Amino acid sequence: MRWYVVASVLTILTSSQGILTSLSQSNGGYKYDYATVPFLAEVFKLIVSSVLLWRECRRSPPPKMTTEWRSVRLYPIPSIIYLVHNNVQFATLTYVDTSTYQIMGNLKIVTTGLLFRLFLKRKLSNLQWMAIVLLAIGTTTSQVKGCGEASCESLFSAPIQGYMLGVLSACLSALAGVYTEFLMKKNNDSLYWQNIQLYTFGAIFNMAKLVLDDFRSGFEKGPWWQRLFDGYSITTWMVVLNLGSTGLLVSWLMKYADNIIKVYSTSMAMLLTMVLSVFLFSFKPTLQLFLGIFVCMMSLHMYFAPPSMLVDLPLTTKAAPDSLVEVSVDRKTSS
Amino acid sequence: MRWYVVASVLTILTSSQGILTSLSQSNGGYKYDYATVPFLAEVFKLIVSSVLLWRECRRSPPPKMTTEWRSVRLYPIPSIIYLVHNNVQFATLTYVDTSTYQIMGNLKIVTTGLLFRLFLKRKLSNLQWMAIVLLAIGTTTSQVKGCGEASCESLFSAPIQGYMLGVLSACLSALAGVYTEFLMKKNNDSLYWQNIQLYTFGAIFNMAKLVLDDFRSGFEKGPWWQRLFDGYSITTWMVVLNLGSTGLLVSWLMKYADNIIKVYSTSMAMLLTMVLSVFLFSFKPTLQLFLGIFVCMMSLHMYFAPPSMLVDLPLTTKAAPDSLVEVSVDRKTSS
Repeated sequence: MRWYVVASVLTILTSSQGILTSLSQSNGGYKYDYATVPFLAEVFKLIVSSVLLWRECRRSPPPKMTTEWRSVRLYPIPSIIYLVHNNVQFATLTYVDTSTYQIMGNLKIVTTGLLFRLFLKRKLSNLQWMAIVLLAIGTTTSQVKGCGEASCESLFSAPIQGYMLGVLSACLSALAGVYTEFLMKKNNDSLYWQNIQLYTFGAIFNMAKLVLDDFRSGFEKGPWWQRLFDGYSITTWMVVLNLGSTGLLVSWLMKYADNIIKVYSTSMAMLLTMVLSVFLFSFKPTLQLFLGIFVCMMSLHMYFAPPSMLVDLPLTTKAAPDSLVEVSVDRKTSS
Repeated sequence: MRWYVVASVLTILTSSQGILTSLSQSNGGYKYDYATVPFLAEVFKLIVSSVLLWRECRRSPPPKMTTEWRSVRLYPIPSIIYLVHNNVQFATLTYVDTSTYQIMGNLKIVTTGLLFRLFLKRKLSNLQWMAIVLLAIGTTTSQVKGCGEASCESLFSAPIQGYMLGVLSACLSALAGVYTEFLMKKNNDSLYWQNIQLYTFGAIFNMAKLVLDDFRSGFEKGPWWQRLFDGYSITTWMVVLNLGSTGLLVSWLMKYADNIIKVYSTSMAMLLTMVLSVFLFSFKPTLQLFLGIFVCMMSLHMYFAPPSMLVDLPLTTKAAPDSLVEVSVDRKTSS
């Protein structure tokens, strides 16, 4: 499977996720307990990965599986980072409003690039760095509030703690991604075996959250497993399956591609969601949405196009009449 | 003189032009006849060019000057294009509001690139084309109306004629620039001699406008030459000298550099004016201003940085222990 096929499917599914989640709401609220969705998605991913690993085990050669504790103990770390991230996110939102938080969220594109370089020691060209920064600028531009929108709080008016927590949040989000990539690539274990370890811890952490919520509410609605599917509709199940599928695709990308590709995929999904919202939810398109999309498209081309396509001037070959030798003028040689 | 020194001075002067013009106003209006400013600027440029040509004539070898009618007759053409452009601009503004007109004005960056390619047959790399489009996107982004601004007319609500005239206006503006470059570069005549021809026609066309205005108003304030300096202050004179100086620098760029450099120079000036307005006129900076500036800076780097700087990965030299041969990994070789 080529990475760009996986990345494209991820873009479509991530984009659907936002739309399905909106559609699963009724009167602006959830009829079901939203915390059950990521838990069930982890269970779904666990089942799929187990089935695929079982099939792999019946073939020869059998898949490589490292089972020693030294390796297994690394798999809860992404879940732990996400747990810390969720709490930082919560703290950030006590200082800044949601739209400022959303704008700051684009910073994780840049922090992912930085950690990708520092932690995974992956080199990027000057142009690729520029492409990453442009992707962050493009997604931010598309989210700039339009003229005459209801809430008009200034982006620059939050207390300094809000911005610092926003930066921390972007770093944690990037760290989780980069760490997962490190984990998936550190040996050539079967992807499905790695997934099983990752999702088992994921399911445990999500279950812990459900239990904690129960304790917080004093069990007034009964324990979580008794009301796991309460208020679930077809759309809610689609949200679960969709979230699970995106998770499986992200795992694949972490092993066979990289974090930057994932970041492009999810950024494009965000733009796709905005474009689809124009048609589905009569969202009014703004000039900045178009500008942002353009910038992101440029960034995509800059990052992925072969350098020779980008910098070479069209070859002007002229036959020197006296020698019949073809002279090719190439800008690269002049610098 | 290096082109980037000239381009930088042009940026600063063009930026001052907007600020000086604002400062020369009193109570939001002009105490002087604004149409006299470009006329006097043409006269100023004519005087400066004549002095410089005279100095050049005293040295040997004497400057090259083509005086045949076949060449001279081409020099009024830029003035004629500007005249048509001004009228198209006037017509456009009957269909669209000034802020939509300003946004559409950024299109001239792209049309200049296109005419530069088509008319002057100058080749640009894929990356340079992207840089030009990004420059237009960046300047447009910086002008996107902020949340909660007074006038809130939608950009997409003007009649189709407005947009068509806007495109025509962008093409004419680009044509004038590209034609001037063609004129300045078509032979190795002295720059000052070429300037004298250009500015003589410029002065004539501007004078014609003053006469026409007099006829339109029925000479109720007397002929234009009797009230040429009416209401002039020191600032007004600075506006004239500044406009004249930018004109001289543009001529120099057209002969020794090119239109794209001029476009970068004036776009950067627009952004500089917005930044200076934050300090001088307590203009409230918006997020989109910062985003636009970032995009333009990226564009500048993409267009002018040597391609080898942009696409090469940092050279990773590793000494192979058994052979002591250095292996350099270069992305270009893999494509």
